[in-house]
Amino acid sequence: MSADRIPVAILGATGLVGQHMIRILADHPWFRIGELAASDASTGHVYRDVARWALASELPADIAGMAVKASHGGFESTLVLSALPSEPARREEPRLARMGSVVCSNASAFRMDPDVPLLVPDVNPGALSLTAGQPWATAGGALITNPNCTVAGLAPVMAAMEAHWGIESATTVTLQAMSGAGIDGLSALSMAGNVIPFIPGEEEKIGAESSKILGRDIPMAVTVNRVPVADGHLAHLFLRLGKPAHPRVVEEALRSVTPAPPARDLPTIPSRTLQVLSPTDRPQPRLDVQAGNGMKVSVGRIRRVPGYDIALTVLVHNLVRGAAGACIANAELAVAAGVFTREGKRGRSGEQGA
Amino acid sequence: MSADRIPVAILGATGLVGQHMIRILADHPWFRIGELAASDASTGHVYRDVARWALASELPADIAGMAVKASHGGFESTLVLSALPSEPARREEPRLARMGSVVCSNASAFRMDPDVPLLVPDVNPGALSLTAGQPWATAGGALITNPNCTVAGLAPVMAAMEAHWGIESATTVTLQAMSGAGIDGLSALSMAGNVIPFIPGEEEKIGAESSKILGRDIPMAVTVNRVPVADGHLAHLFLRLGKPAHPRVVEEALRSVTPAPPARDLPTIPSRTLQVLSPTDRPQPRLDVQAGNGMKVSVGRIRRVPGYDIALTVLVHNLVRGAAGACIANAELAVAAGVFTREGKRGRSGEQGA
Amino acid sequence: MSADRIPVAILGATGLVGQHMIRILADHPWFRIGELAASDASTGHVYRDVARWALASELPADIAGMAVKASHGGFESTLVLSALPSEPARREEPRLARMGSVVCSNASAFRMDPDVPLLVPDVNPGALSLTAGQPWATAGGALITNPNCTVAGLAPVMAAMEAHWGIESATTVTLQAMSGAGIDGLSALSMAGNVIPFIPGEEEKIGAESSKILGRDIPMAVTVNRVPVADGHLAHLFLRLGKPAHPRVVEEALRSVTPAPPARDLPTIPSRTLQVLSPTDRPQPRLDVQAGNGMKVSVGRIRRVPGYDIALTVLVHNLVRGAAGACIANAELAVAAGVFTREGKRGRSGEQGA
Amino acid sequence: MSADRIPVAILGATGLVGQHMIRILADHPWFRIGELAASDASTGHVYRDVARWALASELPADIAGMAVKASHGGFESTLVLSALPSEPARREEPRLARMGSVVCSNASAFRMDPDVPLLVPDVNPGALSLTAGQPWATAGGALITNPNCTVAGLAPVMAAMEAHWGIESATTVTLQAMSGAGIDGLSALSMAGNVIPFIPGEEEKIGAESSKILGRDIPMAVTVNRVPVADGHLAHLFLRLGKPAHPRVVEEALRSVTPAPPARDLPTIPSRTLQVLSPTDRPQPRLDVQAGNGMKVSVGRIRRVPGYDIALTVLVHNLVRGAAGACIANAELAVAAGVFTREGKRGRSGEQGA
Repeated sequence: MSADRIPVAILGATGLVGQHMIRILADHPWFRIGELAASDASTGHVYRDVARWALASELPADIAGMAVKASHGGFESTLVLSALPSEPARREEPRLARMGSVVCSNASAFRMDPDVPLLVPDVNPGALSLTAGQPWATAGGALITNPNCTVAGLAPVMAAMEAHWGIESATTVTLQAMSGAGIDGLSALSMAGNVIPFIPGEEEKIGAESSKILGRDIPMAVTVNRVPVADGHLAHLFLRLGKPAHPRVVEEALRSVTPAPPARDLPTIPSRTLQVLSPTDRPQPRLDVQAGNGMKVSVGRIRRVPGYDIALTVLVHNLVRGAAGACIANAELAVAAGVFTREGKRGRSGEQGA
Repeated sequence: MSADRIPVAILGATGLVGQHMIRILADHPWFRIGELAASDASTGHVYRDVARWALASELPADIAGMAVKASHGGFESTLVLSALPSEPARREEPRLARMGSVVCSNASAFRMDPDVPLLVPDVNPGALSLTAGQPWATAGGALITNPNCTVAGLAPVMAAMEAHWGIESATTVTLQAMSGAGIDGLSALSMAGNVIPFIPGEEEKIGAESSKILGRDIPMAVTVNRVPVADGHLAHLFLRLGKPAHPRVVEEALRSVTPAPPARDLPTIPSRTLQVLSPTDRPQPRLDVQAGNGMKVSVGRIRRVPGYDIALTVLVHNLVRGAAGACIANAELAVAAGVFTREGKRGRSGEQGA
Repeated sequence: MSADRIPVAILGATGLVGQHMIRILADHPWFRIGELAASDASTGHVYRDVARWALASELPADIAGMAVKASHGGFESTLVLSALPSEPARREEPRLARMGSVVCSNASAFRMDPDVPLLVPDVNPGALSLTAGQPWATAGGALITNPNCTVAGLAPVMAAMEAHWGIESATTVTLQAMSGAGIDGLSALSMAGNVIPFIPGEEEKIGAESSKILGRDIPMAVTVNRVPVADGHLAHLFLRLGKPAHPRVVEEALRSVTPAPPARDLPTIPSRTLQVLSPTDRPQPRLDVQAGNGMKVSVGRIRRVPGYDIALTVLVHNLVRGAAGACIANAELAVAAGVFTREGKRGRSGEQGA
Repeated sequence: MSADRIPVAILGATGLVGQHMIRILADHPWFRIGELAASDASTGHVYRDVARWALASELPADIAGMAVKASHGGFESTLVLSALPSEPARREEPRLARMGSVVCSNASAFRMDPDVPLLVPDVNPGALSLTAGQPWATAGGALITNPNCTVAGLAPVMAAMEAHWGIESATTVTLQAMSGAGIDGLSALSMAGNVIPFIPGEEEKIGAESSKILGRDIPMAVTVNRVPVADGHLAHLFLRLGKPAHPRVVEEALRSVTPAPPARDLPTIPSRTLQVLSPTDRPQPRLDVQAGNGMKVSVGRIRRVPGYDIALTVLVHNLVRGAAGACIANAELAVAAGVFTREGKRGRSGEQGA
């Protein structure tokens, strides 16, 4: 890795998504961690002392000793990865974009804003062009979002189905992992040996974000469940299509989903977006969530069922393809597409601004 | 409990369903356990030595010491509860009916036979009359089945919806408990922290049996999952109806589902079939599976979703309302309706046969 | 149940221990729930609205609608069950005792005070006499505590061993259930498929309280673990004894542990304190925790191991025998022994003070 | 990796230990997989079709298509890794050694034989010299075993304690992961939310093998538990020592345990054997089992407790350091020490034998 990797700032660095960002960036060919930021309670402390590292892989030694900055402060790095909760994201992200930073955000705060890309590099890379119309574009800033963790899994599958057959309507039931609720989001006693058939706000997001990525309103019925699985959201999808689709042909179409350039050349995007599994009892979180280092979406159980043209089952690593990896891939695309340049664009950080 | 309770024979007494039958009958006002039967490996041994008792409630002391008979033998009790697997059920159940026994079976072997009732006392008690046309009717014998564990939960809900609004089509995704696979049916390592999105043969049964109980073919799309929950199958149901239904009205209709006589007076049938729950995160297996001693079906999340007239979530105790309790309730109905009489009907046991 | 059951006030009624107290008292022959109290946030609300009922059995309908009082207020009931956390317990319990109430507490705050009984009715009923020396005795008040949930299981076993063989030293390793940490005490992600080899403050309590109950300092090495089990603390115990003990004789001695009067006649105390299990793989939380409605302590694996006179394994329902049931049994003993009288003793409530 | 890596045969290749061997060898600098063998049922089939691959990492593509041989047959590879169950191991391992193969076995069959090394390269490398006295030594064959999965974790810790302070006696209570029982070894329903306080044969092995590795009989009291954890055996250890030990000094001694040559230079042996953790709630399986790619043993909770000189808690990855990795490391040592040579020793394979 070259010494001149681009420094990035991670906001919300102590949470689970922030931890996965750190894990992925420890070995990244283009980026290095320049700054870590979190809430005021952590500010000024050393990272290892305030982050309750929750991953099975070790906290990289060089990151452990970094001082944590305040998310509401300024950063030397003008490439920013935000793992902030929605509320602080709403405050800090536009502020930093206005100062000329390119902010890649995992937060839901601005995902549905018309001029904000809801971007998946190997699905809708063109959405990135929305940044040109953002108010802070002249300052060199940009705000780019990745979708909700479940939508990150549904999007590449639905986009392929839409492209080949057109989707008339979709029904999905999800079985979502505990890590989607954060380190302390769920009580052990309530989840052990149990299913909770509801997650606040989740069903609305899945419908709305899927439509935004596909570029048109698709009627979508959604029911979500929290299940006692650590990582990996499973989604059963029933589709009505514009024309008939044979399961074998669908399987073939999904197997051949390949990232187009420039997504094809991004370090975090796998050579194939989807892993199509033939055994009738797959995908399973335990066996398949790590496919492609967590960046491949798994698909199985492709079949016809009464009342629909096709049914299938999707599995996504909610914290990697669904969050940290998605956000990093978006930053990679911003670099590859020239939205972010090392020198800044038209005076990033406002030094030469208006 | 009176001394002249009707003796019943339990076939397949060592499995999980048989154990629940024993648990329920320990306190039953009409029935007492007359005989226990299991496979040859257990025959001749004392029950406690061959059954690996797997319930949290204690094995009743008076049952523990009973000798286990062979399922393929004869029984003094002419009221028989069968918790046999499908294959031995196919052999033994008609044999016993032919000998004049009233066999209430939890097995899937004969459920779809046109002259065999697929019976839920508080849903379709009229199906019992099919027994009059069975070949062994003249011998006083009868064969009655209860539905698959998931269908046992769906049936009362779907029947109420069908009665009020007519069902055009149904889509269901289930999250099924491990106990549905029997004591040793699943490996610990494969289930822990995992979801398995398939159960052999299950999806077909759910569609077919639901239609048989409702009395007409209803197009039904089904996807099933095994989840790491001990007891309690959850089913999300999306319905298209013959006419519009407001969620509040549906809720009211489901709340008022009340067993009609004679089901109303059966000891194992609760005074209300359904427990309708208002909180958005219910029903949950951990909290709701024991409702009505496991015989009440719980319903929640009644709402409109795009593309359907109504969505709702159903929870059933798969081993009680879905198996042991269902079978016992059918035996109660057989007694209440005179299909079983203590004295036998037209020569039970074939003494005076044709 | 007679109409003149003694009304009791439950403090800390919304927590898990309080919920079990409510569940047990719903059917209690001597007591009825007179008042419910909790922290200020709950005060003035109806119980069902502020308690997140977490038990599989239903919240009794007549309790659901009761208004919740403030734990720091006064109560009409002069028999008080306290499920308060340690800090508020330290404030409120002496206050109520001073006002003439008999307070039976599950809190750890006063357990080790020399003049406070650390009482298990079927182990050390004589400890109750300490109440006569309490400062509020003249006002008719008393403060009685039950031990830590794990000690509640160890105490009857260790007391029997001490009585027959004398204990020279003890070593215990516990595997404790999640419910011991309260409804929200542990995060789901940290417990799922994991063991946490530490519980703050627990190891000290186990040693100290065991010694207090046995009446002399016994050297005790303790290591505790939190395991992903819902209810039921398992404790492996290695003992050095004053004289040799054969496992068969130990088993016999433990089987014959029988509550002496007056404990024998208390509604919540089982006829035998211990359930001794012979199979080598018992006791197990899933199978044995409900023994005696959660009030029987299970013992198994009684055997010799190198370096000790005897090893054995103990299981206790941490919320019943280890908390709610223990506290209620203490209240029963207080009534049976005349420490609590309906009329009050020398002016309960202080109206006619010293 | 050089093209002339040594080919190894894996016996019992379809089980969990065999799968981990395959996973580790996929990237091994010295070895490549030459042959795979399993029971007759698998013989002649392609590996992917008969192994139910149970690891989260993908089955290497070049291995997936290999034909599976019979364990009772002959092999071209004269370096053999055996993951056989005990019974076939007893038959096949001496047979192959007699034919001149160097067999590194994970099986328990011969571990306690006086002339068979029970070897841990970074603990007792000298044990390897026992092979010189084996009956098949002249044929160039050897039989080397690694210890039981739990002992693999205890051994480096106990060896360090023995070296510095001398161990007078040891007491251990283990909490063992489900994967120790193999893919199908435990039923899901029996393990979910449960602890099973017994594992057949395990307690005896732990005592005997620990003593053999340490080189003298150490009185050891052992109680084992199966807990619902996927991977990672935890062992709480209480030691009486020959002289007093301060916890800080023990911590320092354990931190500095470093493999001596030749173990130091083996690819699978980490640079430090132990990971000593300071937080009071560590080690935890979920967080620490992957340390050093599963080859580092974690130690924590080093402290004094009444009646012992020191207590501590050990965590070992039961399938890596405790099985597959241990076996591979032994093969590495056999190569490094010249017990295995590529050319064979005194006529491996018996071509020139007596």
